[in-house]
Amino acid sequence: MKVSIIGLGHIGKAVLGILNENKKLFMERYGKSIEVISVSDSKNTVYDKNGLDLEKVLMYKQRNQLGELAENIKFDEIYSLESDVIVDMSPATKDGIAGMKLYTSAFESGKNIVTSNKAPLALHWKEIMEGAYKNKKRILFESSVGGGTPLFNLNSYCLKSSNILEFKGQVSSTINFVLSQLLAGLDFNDAVKTAQNMGIAETDYHDDTNGLDGARKTVIIANALLNKDYTLNDVKYDGIENLKDINYMKESGKIYRVLSHIKNENEITIESKIFELDRKETLACLDSLSMGYLEKTDNNDDITIFEKHDGPLETAAQVVNDLLII
Amino acid sequence: MKVSIIGLGHIGKAVLGILNENKKLFMERYGKSIEVISVSDSKNTVYDKNGLDLEKVLMYKQRNQLGELAENIKFDEIYSLESDVIVDMSPATKDGIAGMKLYTSAFESGKNIVTSNKAPLALHWKEIMEGAYKNKKRILFESSVGGGTPLFNLNSYCLKSSNILEFKGQVSSTINFVLSQLLAGLDFNDAVKTAQNMGIAETDYHDDTNGLDGARKTVIIANALLNKDYTLNDVKYDGIENLKDINYMKESGKIYRVLSHIKNENEITIESKIFELDRKETLACLDSLSMGYLEKTDNNDDITIFEKHDGPLETAAQVVNDLLII
Repeated sequence: MKVSIIGLGHIGKAVLGILNENKKLFMERYGKSIEVISVSDSKNTVYDKNGLDLEKVLMYKQRNQLGELAENIKFDEIYSLESDVIVDMSPATKDGIAGMKLYTSAFESGKNIVTSNKAPLALHWKEIMEGAYKNKKRILFESSVGGGTPLFNLNSYCLKSSNILEFKGQVSSTINFVLSQLLAGLDFNDAVKTAQNMGIAETDYHDDTNGLDGARKTVIIANALLNKDYTLNDVKYDGIENLKDINYMKESGKIYRVLSHIKNENEITIESKIFELDRKETLACLDSLSMGYLEKTDNNDDITIFEKHDGPLETAAQVVNDLLII
Repeated sequence: MKVSIIGLGHIGKAVLGILNENKKLFMERYGKSIEVISVSDSKNTVYDKNGLDLEKVLMYKQRNQLGELAENIKFDEIYSLESDVIVDMSPATKDGIAGMKLYTSAFESGKNIVTSNKAPLALHWKEIMEGAYKNKKRILFESSVGGGTPLFNLNSYCLKSSNILEFKGQVSSTINFVLSQLLAGLDFNDAVKTAQNMGIAETDYHDDTNGLDGARKTVIIANALLNKDYTLNDVKYDGIENLKDINYMKESGKIYRVLSHIKNENEITIESKIFELDRKETLACLDSLSMGYLEKTDNNDDITIFEKHDGPLETAAQVVNDLLII
């Protein structure tokens, strides 16, 4: 399988690392050879039709000399390469339009997409899915929500015979970590600074703390699990920038988390907001940096899955998993 | 897809129920039509090349008149029917030989197997897998261990890019329920009787309480996760029939569970025994009737998955899931 890689941030580098270290293993175990024929970062696209040496890609990237590794091509030329899959690990843009155009162009060029980029999916779900359907191509996006914790593939391959009645999940580390700091007594600015110092919050953190990031994840989950095409307008969401109840919350002895919540009854509920959890509840096992979900189903009872620690390696593992099953 | 069903106990009946209720849904969602062309219970095999009416199968079975529903054929004739998959939900036999012969004959007749029957897998893994490989057929067995909680498909479709370093799982309800009763103060006979009255333990309960059942599950997990062909001789296992430490355990304030444990380091550990859990540990969230696992991996961190309540419906949901992905 020939692959074009876009994005060499933490996740992109970890993906190349996993592919490089497990080349022999993936061939032995799955009979699958994954050749990376092009790599794009924000400045360069380098190409080798025989497959790039991934150790060298990482080394040249580290030295900020990616462009010197192999033949340079224009970004738009990746559509005409002989690749089977384009992997998008570029950072989210505000409007997701670049990603949407990338995916629909890829489908039209006969390529599948694996993506960890949630903006295009949250904002242009319908166009993207129609593009895939029309061109008989696939898009897998396990790593776009919930990092390394299986969610979409869990539903697609392990819970196929059930209807999802309710989903409740902790899928946003940043907002939950900042909330935990507020509850520990820090003021908002200090809580954000702590998160930034730990590499959990970005310089521009507002999309996380005002709840928009959680809402984006929630609409992707709702569309994937319920097979619909909801938009951000259908999601009710709260942030944590102006919490009025903080003193009550501190004194209550309960656990508070921002959760994505989808209820599939007569009326559909799609929301991302603060939930008060009793210490005995399943999701109360998770700490603020965990990722995890509870799914209530008709035939499979209530399934809970979580991962204690999430980071770029775990997310990258799901990008590679998508490449191995596509 | 045409299917032959073997076994009409609790799980078999629940499978027919799910297939019957979701016929339209499976077609809409997956474009898949599952036609049951033969059904065998311990006495009869009935056949209709156009597909049996599943509601009628359940009704005739209920009245103990299955043989009157449709054409009767001999059990061995199922190999020559035009089915794609044979589903084995017959009860476990001591030696698993009947199941092993069933599967290898099915593969030779060009049929795939879906099974919830763990005896053949635990006792004849190598022959069965070689038979499947030689005839290019598949065997899926998600429901053979852990009831409705995804395990084998979770590894096959969601954790493909990781190596499993350690597995620790609560996969046996009977032994864990009886143990919980012993710890609550009942003597062994009363604990077993309580389990029998609740439908959790069988009349012949020894394979559960002496640990053999847990060992069987453990060897299947080890073989599937590590891609090996271990036998029961490679499993160290304990039962709960002669617990010496019961008074210490009662007074300790800790949680005790019989767990399957596999460690994949320089030396391989495969065991099924009592573990002492601290109340903060992940698996301590589960009660004695839950099913759940913790998997430590190299790239996917530690993944925990569990189901609070397990029963025939949840197990049946995994049989149907296997049918939908085969």
